[in-house]
Amino acid sequence: MSSIGKIISMNHHVRLKSRPVGEPTADNFEIADGPMPAAGDGDVLRRTIYLSLDPYMRGRMSDAASYATPVKLGEVMGAHTVSEVIESRNPAFAKGEFVTGYDGWQSYGVSNGKDLRKLDPKVVPISTAIGVLGMPGLTAFVGLMDIGQPKAGETVVVSAASGAVGAVVGQLAKIKGCRTVGIAGSADKCKYVVDELGFDACINYKTDDLVPALRAACPNGVDIYFENVGGAVFAAILRVINKGARIPLCGMISEYNATGNPAGPNLRPLLVQRALIQGFIVSDHNDRGAAFLQDVAPLVVSGRIKFREDIVEGLDNAPSAFIGLLHGKNFGKLMVRVSPDPTRSA
Amino acid sequence: MSSIGKIISMNHHVRLKSRPVGEPTADNFEIADGPMPAAGDGDVLRRTIYLSLDPYMRGRMSDAASYATPVKLGEVMGAHTVSEVIESRNPAFAKGEFVTGYDGWQSYGVSNGKDLRKLDPKVVPISTAIGVLGMPGLTAFVGLMDIGQPKAGETVVVSAASGAVGAVVGQLAKIKGCRTVGIAGSADKCKYVVDELGFDACINYKTDDLVPALRAACPNGVDIYFENVGGAVFAAILRVINKGARIPLCGMISEYNATGNPAGPNLRPLLVQRALIQGFIVSDHNDRGAAFLQDVAPLVVSGRIKFREDIVEGLDNAPSAFIGLLHGKNFGKLMVRVSPDPTRSA
Repeated sequence: MSSIGKIISMNHHVRLKSRPVGEPTADNFEIADGPMPAAGDGDVLRRTIYLSLDPYMRGRMSDAASYATPVKLGEVMGAHTVSEVIESRNPAFAKGEFVTGYDGWQSYGVSNGKDLRKLDPKVVPISTAIGVLGMPGLTAFVGLMDIGQPKAGETVVVSAASGAVGAVVGQLAKIKGCRTVGIAGSADKCKYVVDELGFDACINYKTDDLVPALRAACPNGVDIYFENVGGAVFAAILRVINKGARIPLCGMISEYNATGNPAGPNLRPLLVQRALIQGFIVSDHNDRGAAFLQDVAPLVVSGRIKFREDIVEGLDNAPSAFIGLLHGKNFGKLMVRVSPDPTRSA
Repeated sequence: MSSIGKIISMNHHVRLKSRPVGEPTADNFEIADGPMPAAGDGDVLRRTIYLSLDPYMRGRMSDAASYATPVKLGEVMGAHTVSEVIESRNPAFAKGEFVTGYDGWQSYGVSNGKDLRKLDPKVVPISTAIGVLGMPGLTAFVGLMDIGQPKAGETVVVSAASGAVGAVVGQLAKIKGCRTVGIAGSADKCKYVVDELGFDACINYKTDDLVPALRAACPNGVDIYFENVGGAVFAAILRVINKGARIPLCGMISEYNATGNPAGPNLRPLLVQRALIQGFIVSDHNDRGAAFLQDVAPLVVSGRIKFREDIVEGLDNAPSAFIGLLHGKNFGKLMVRVSPDPTRSA
């Protein structure tokens, strides 16, 4: 009670109001203002600039057992964030510095700083800390490198290829000397994946006949399939995998809004092809973060790995942007600009 | 043409007459007599004593792409065999020795001997070379040890638990200090699995409600599931796997007679639990044969690993025995006694 401190402003935020049944709606969220958090001794108070919207958040809205504790009703939605320090009572941080943390869907955050990583806006845009060089990039790195173990000459397919994770998977696979094929949900996304990101081919799952398109795009079969979507795409992939194929299972976004338990594909191809599926959750692999940044940050700095951000303006638009994410309405890494980014001139 | 040699007897055999659609029937097989094979220079001629009947043979009867070349129409069905050398023109083998090879569903086989391994009937019964110490045993060893990687205190579940593979999986897991739970298709099989093989529990998939039965038998969840059957059992297992579970995928016998492509379970538990499924085919792992025999043969000799054989008399009964195998009618390692076993007094 004594820690409430002075209220100098209002902390705008989005709370989970009710649990979605099937597709989330705006009614599941409550947008409100609360007291400004205060920095106690040793604390760092920051203003949220960007918050990341990611598919895993759908799981946290449900109370079904999942890999992360659900958000409680009435609790602020969680999210990775990029922020500016506006008050520091911690000698390790100074006002005006930029940091990334997990402050959630709100305008301000406070903590003792142990959860923060400092960002240097002179090296790369600070927004990359929640995208290509953040959790999505690490997800791509761990799934492709540690589970997929790509070898030059192999064929790598990734779904949600223009998304935050898929774009990194494909570009890393290409750098490893693999034939790289994306799967995405529009002609524009496919064009971007091939023309900008340098994939060898891209399949539009909404208009292409999946199995023939996969056979055409992968004349030597599929050695690695980085799974982000589940559903019909996964079923098609199982028909074209090679002997010894590896399938890092990162997400199944096409099923996240399902109310029942949709059936999966027949798994006999895994047996016939001696294939592996390995589910993984990036938060188990934070020990790979340093190696990831060491390997991938220079590639982003040099422009060899490209990224695209889909930035929605204003915290109030976070719920609708998130609902759209589950339908693939975003194009590139989806994030919300909660407050102005002083490092961007535009 | 010149190698036909003298015909001293008839070689009774079973050929694939037609490819089954769904369940195989007797009409898919042709039982016939052919010329006796002759031993050329360097060759070893042997009389089949036992031939092994195994679920994988169903795949070879189809011409769909699978992990092994299909049996051609009119060709003798393949099988691992135990035989007695009746004529040797190869100095490495002597008449009266016992060998194991892959002579198929026929009374006699001939080759240069490179495909044979000698058996010592004084150590273990020669029939074990196609069972507990043969391909099924190696399958259990590779799947459990190399893919499952059991650790003391973990819980291992194996389906088809009284079968040739499952019985070895469970007994090896028990030796490794795991809680070991079988799944089998009759009360008698379950009783055998617990009372004779020493499993901690066994679930009757035909009468028990699978998920509650699994929860009761596996109070700490399932760390390793050795998959032999597919279908409803696999779907139930996915609901009780632990974080980091490993699922060696060895077979899916419940689906081998399917004419369509039956749907599988929803795979989200693999993601949530960071679980692994790894399909494998034992013939890829023959390099593990020596380690397998070194580890497991002494356990069989000492009686610590038990085995049960279901021996059908006479080659003419091989087709019906095989058809029954696909329904779990056998109890223990199914084999056909093609000719008398001189090492058995009974």
